[in-house]
Amino acid sequence: MKNVYLSLLAFLIFGFISAQQAPVDYVNPFIGTSNYGATNPGAIAPRGMASVSPFNVAGRIDLNPLEKDSQWLSNPYVYENKFLTGFSHVNMSGVGCPDLGVIITMPTTGELETDHLKYGSTYSEETAKAGYYSANLDKYKVRAEATASTRVGVSRYSFPAGKSNILLNLGLGLTNEQGAMVHVVSPTEIEGMRTVGSFCYNNAEAAYPVYFVANFSKPADEFGIWKTPYNYEGEEAQWMTYNGKTRIKEGFTREVMGDSIGAYMTYDFNEPQEVEVKIGISYVSLENARENLDKEVGDLSFEEVYEQTKEAWNKKLKVVEVEGVSEDDKTIFYTALYHTQIHPNILNDFNGEYPEIATGKTGKTEGTRYTTFSLWDTYRNYHQLMSLLYPQEQLEMVKSMLAMYDENGWLPKWELNSTETFTMVGDPAAVVISDTYLRGLTDFDVEKAYKAMLKSALDTVSNPLRPGLKQYVDNGYVGVDSGVPGPVSTTLEYNIADYAIAQLAKSLGKEKDYKTFSDRAFSYKKLYNSETGFLQPKYSSGKWYQPFDPLAGANFEKNVGYIEGNAWQYLFMVPHDIKGLMKIMGGAESFENKLDKVFEAGHYDMANEPDILYPYLYNYIEGSEYKTSAKVTELIKKYYKNSPAGLPGNDDTGTMSAWLVYSMMGFYPVTPAEPIYTFTKPAFEQIKINLNDQYYDNESIIINYRSSEETSNSDKSPAFLLKDFFINHNDFLNSKKINLITVDN
Amino acid sequence: MKNVYLSLLAFLIFGFISAQQAPVDYVNPFIGTSNYGATNPGAIAPRGMASVSPFNVAGRIDLNPLEKDSQWLSNPYVYENKFLTGFSHVNMSGVGCPDLGVIITMPTTGELETDHLKYGSTYSEETAKAGYYSANLDKYKVRAEATASTRVGVSRYSFPAGKSNILLNLGLGLTNEQGAMVHVVSPTEIEGMRTVGSFCYNNAEAAYPVYFVANFSKPADEFGIWKTPYNYEGEEAQWMTYNGKTRIKEGFTREVMGDSIGAYMTYDFNEPQEVEVKIGISYVSLENARENLDKEVGDLSFEEVYEQTKEAWNKKLKVVEVEGVSEDDKTIFYTALYHTQIHPNILNDFNGEYPEIATGKTGKTEGTRYTTFSLWDTYRNYHQLMSLLYPQEQLEMVKSMLAMYDENGWLPKWELNSTETFTMVGDPAAVVISDTYLRGLTDFDVEKAYKAMLKSALDTVSNPLRPGLKQYVDNGYVGVDSGVPGPVSTTLEYNIADYAIAQLAKSLGKEKDYKTFSDRAFSYKKLYNSETGFLQPKYSSGKWYQPFDPLAGANFEKNVGYIEGNAWQYLFMVPHDIKGLMKIMGGAESFENKLDKVFEAGHYDMANEPDILYPYLYNYIEGSEYKTSAKVTELIKKYYKNSPAGLPGNDDTGTMSAWLVYSMMGFYPVTPAEPIYTFTKPAFEQIKINLNDQYYDNESIIINYRSSEETSNSDKSPAFLLKDFFINHNDFLNSKKINLITVDN
Repeated sequence: MKNVYLSLLAFLIFGFISAQQAPVDYVNPFIGTSNYGATNPGAIAPRGMASVSPFNVAGRIDLNPLEKDSQWLSNPYVYENKFLTGFSHVNMSGVGCPDLGVIITMPTTGELETDHLKYGSTYSEETAKAGYYSANLDKYKVRAEATASTRVGVSRYSFPAGKSNILLNLGLGLTNEQGAMVHVVSPTEIEGMRTVGSFCYNNAEAAYPVYFVANFSKPADEFGIWKTPYNYEGEEAQWMTYNGKTRIKEGFTREVMGDSIGAYMTYDFNEPQEVEVKIGISYVSLENARENLDKEVGDLSFEEVYEQTKEAWNKKLKVVEVEGVSEDDKTIFYTALYHTQIHPNILNDFNGEYPEIATGKTGKTEGTRYTTFSLWDTYRNYHQLMSLLYPQEQLEMVKSMLAMYDENGWLPKWELNSTETFTMVGDPAAVVISDTYLRGLTDFDVEKAYKAMLKSALDTVSNPLRPGLKQYVDNGYVGVDSGVPGPVSTTLEYNIADYAIAQLAKSLGKEKDYKTFSDRAFSYKKLYNSETGFLQPKYSSGKWYQPFDPLAGANFEKNVGYIEGNAWQYLFMVPHDIKGLMKIMGGAESFENKLDKVFEAGHYDMANEPDILYPYLYNYIEGSEYKTSAKVTELIKKYYKNSPAGLPGNDDTGTMSAWLVYSMMGFYPVTPAEPIYTFTKPAFEQIKINLNDQYYDNESIIINYRSSEETSNSDKSPAFLLKDFFINHNDFLNSKKINLITVDN
Repeated sequence: MKNVYLSLLAFLIFGFISAQQAPVDYVNPFIGTSNYGATNPGAIAPRGMASVSPFNVAGRIDLNPLEKDSQWLSNPYVYENKFLTGFSHVNMSGVGCPDLGVIITMPTTGELETDHLKYGSTYSEETAKAGYYSANLDKYKVRAEATASTRVGVSRYSFPAGKSNILLNLGLGLTNEQGAMVHVVSPTEIEGMRTVGSFCYNNAEAAYPVYFVANFSKPADEFGIWKTPYNYEGEEAQWMTYNGKTRIKEGFTREVMGDSIGAYMTYDFNEPQEVEVKIGISYVSLENARENLDKEVGDLSFEEVYEQTKEAWNKKLKVVEVEGVSEDDKTIFYTALYHTQIHPNILNDFNGEYPEIATGKTGKTEGTRYTTFSLWDTYRNYHQLMSLLYPQEQLEMVKSMLAMYDENGWLPKWELNSTETFTMVGDPAAVVISDTYLRGLTDFDVEKAYKAMLKSALDTVSNPLRPGLKQYVDNGYVGVDSGVPGPVSTTLEYNIADYAIAQLAKSLGKEKDYKTFSDRAFSYKKLYNSETGFLQPKYSSGKWYQPFDPLAGANFEKNVGYIEGNAWQYLFMVPHDIKGLMKIMGGAESFENKLDKVFEAGHYDMANEPDILYPYLYNYIEGSEYKTSAKVTELIKKYYKNSPAGLPGNDDTGTMSAWLVYSMMGFYPVTPAEPIYTFTKPAFEQIKINLNDQYYDNESIIINYRSSEETSNSDKSPAFLLKDFFINHNDFLNSKKINLITVDN
């Protein structure tokens, strides 16, 4: 009776709260802001180009233990840090390299101070919700609030009476690029541009400007520019009394260019006052930034923008409705879903214009041009989730990738704001596009896509996407003597991409290609050393690389064979040939023992992509399927929490969150480009997936979950799970109701 | 007979050449490019905003002994230097502080090299004419030619076959300001802006952009941007393989901002080819720079622009026609006249727009907005010469000064591109405006001008033009304890300004002001120490400053009493009270002895303004007038030559040249705001001044000169000179013919 009682109580509490709380209310943007999750609690609209993030990673290492210049730090905000130097208006979420984090505003009071080390402040009473952030700046007794529409960051600063300032710092930034222009247009408007780029310290030549127009709700009593020149060291310095010193250019209304510049608006308030600052962003031009600002926000108040953005978030999040769990579980679930809706983000302006990739031209789209494709991460589960929950967006993403091919001659690898950053390895765009098509989202030019895939799969001469391709084609693997970093990882990635191409070829009736790429897709076996039982680095001559240490490469240490992982973390990264891998390992038992050992010996890394499919592999071992549910449940409990450290590590533009969303819903797409789900124990009693009726006939899928004990007592409805632990994507899509029952092992 | 014969021969040669040569052909722009004359041989139209100067002052001190960063150097070109790093498109002439010297183009061949220390070249076969410059760049076998219209620099580069480049370097510059933006608009157009300012290391806060649009006659085969970032010294540097290295951004078409950036156009020529580069300049906006380029030059060829500019120069120079001297004398004369037509220069765009001073607004003029007012220099003789030869321009200059008063609340002191640089001392605008009015050019708002003068003459509280004014008003002089540099110089300057105001007051019937300012104008006497016979620095208490060294301050050394001079060089700088000075010195004999000593002992400095009136002071000593002609003739011969070192020193925006033009014509305006000329022996047999018939009734004034010997033998026409050595300005203007005869002493 105790159980029933508790259960009833939980239900009552849940019912009471849910009557008031919509999915959007369960978002906790602080999740992932510690433990290198690299998310930020800033205000952002779904897939927004602009966002307003607190910026607390610069200087004062005594207050900011994770300081941007003292280590590799990829986020504008860290939960543990305490010293805030403003609010950045273009930001990335869950990425592993620093970029953006610029166009930084800061409200201050008293005399003008433009050095962030001096004007920075601790803060308190932080609040973050979907589309909203606020904090009190202790030093100034200023309440700073932020919201955002897609292309406009909106802030509201509540100042006390007296002299107040709003700084717009264009020197400070998370990016390591420098260079800006700023121009005070009027006492209510500032325009400018700021250089960003060299993401992951790659392709610095492609560094590019982001444009902005900032509108202030109250005309400044005084305004100006500051510029800190570099210290001049020539003979002339003896006459330059201003050498290296910050200059204040009061009332200056021409353009100012430089590496360390900013603008300020100053007010003298008789009584406490609010000032709203709206900053429109564009990657095309100042004109477009201004149009984005005017058309998207215009005269809307802070509250009105927030209400619109909150509603947009709720609409996004309510595609999945969950019931019957704790508040924390709902929070980590909806926050994960929220985190999947930040990147890829919108690149095109309100008028459809966007910078083309590599051409230098301005393109124009009728739909949406997406950017920030961290495809090495996202091909594994993220785009599968988008195909299910947001099919229109997933199609627009595929179309964006194809537009890049049109513009650039190549599909993207790790694209950011129309620059190819060449980050990570493999050829993931082929996987994503094939998977999308094979899941039934076919409304794109698949022949062009296929042609694009073949280009990167076959060009062995001048191929920016697949270095080492000739060795791979000739030998079946990339050798350690190829000059390509992580040859084992690269070989596995090429296998996965080739498998995806093969599946698409088959679907398109291209039998010969299907054969060719199917053959190529299993060449990973050549790297399997049956003596050690690992996939190991090998010379192109066929000789194994020595010494071999299966632990080398953990924790992102550089090593000879693997990218961001070690031999344990890559051993099972063969999602397209799990049975084949099992076979060369000597059968299911050997496979299972090894898989057990990964977890038992602590080799499993929940924080990176190569092994995130591992817990689902138990479903491929007859009789041990229960371990999948057990392991997934354990991993969720261990790594995902309703707290800043509530992500296992870098969110990887939503890939870790997508893993969680799938896992909590009770199913997972193990094999890219193979539209099959495998089941696990869901985290909720009921999950309702509301399908997009423009793409799917079935209105919704309801997944019910009961433990076998409960079921045997009360519910005799048929259970699906136990039949074979897998379901075809189409069958899944067409199911009205799926009842999952946990069985005891 | 020998004399007659020689004389005849000279006449024949002269006549023969003059049939072919117009005044414009006598301009040698190399005069003043050595000996710190600070002129440049670049191509410029009369009073042009744009010019194209060879730039040879950067780096390679082995080839460039006068290197810009190794000393105080104020010019983009030095004749002795050998290492050319391009052609700068905004330049100053004859100023004492570095500024501008930016927007530097450079033609090169072979592989792209963007480091000026590496791409620079020696050059040969230099040619310079009014509106034209050319040289061969030895390293590249490229002929570079330049011409200019008012707001557009036009270059023609003759390339050999093969790979060629045109660099547009926005990092390099004579100014010590940094910061630029550049944007390749198309394969034939680049636009951008470049920060300039902090002239004389003053008012660095006001540094401002100059805008440009560059058009290329042939589309580039390839183009791009380079950027050299500063060396990053943080922890991140370990990952930044590009740290501090120049990046080439091939085909980049977005804006790039930074301190060290540039753009390039690259060609691959099958055969030798010419490329014309036209660069429109504006101080208002990119749009105006483009309009200036289009409307002023458009499709005109290099030759057509040069022909127009040459004709404009000839029209300017032929206001004076001289006869009967050597070619060299004609060259130094017309080059001097040419040098008076560079500054003040035109600031307004083709559409009349210009940046207002201090307001940050864009103004619009129906006439011409002039800039570069080095008034401490030019009030002494330059504007007097302009009133005589170019009355319309002089009136527009006065109107420009009054517009500055409207905009800024103050008349200019040393204005440059609508920034007040606060260079030098005194209150010279009042002198210039009064002088102009009193010479009969009254078509301006004299009441406003008078009000403006009174403001700077009377405001003892917050007065940027006249520091130390309260002490001056209270005590009659600025004390050494005032904190004002050069208190003796400052007192003398205020006296001169007050005298000018008094004269204008009298002319306007303001008797009371006339009395007040007349009283103030002679207070210099309080600084006359009858024991030493010098005007000396004094404490406000009345005590003399000790130690006193009349030589301290020569050669621009810093000293307690004087600005750019010593006690000898300021002793006679009382142009408005020469008789009064004579009296306190104990009479004419004592005055003359002292004046003699200045010259005999080598205290005279022909290279700076305070003592440039000295040789004319002999005309004030009865019986010693002959010394004026002798001394002036000697000084001309000694300091002015048809050679790069042919100016005594810095041209001071044409003041030294104006001294020469007057002196060679045989008369000089000793006392500012007192419209009287004093005579000297002219350098020509005949001078014809063609007066502007819109302002003057008399069509022309002919000055004939013969020595007394010649006259007594052959010419009995009445001689004017001997009557009293002075002539009223109006009488002068109305003279049809003035015959000057040298008398033997």
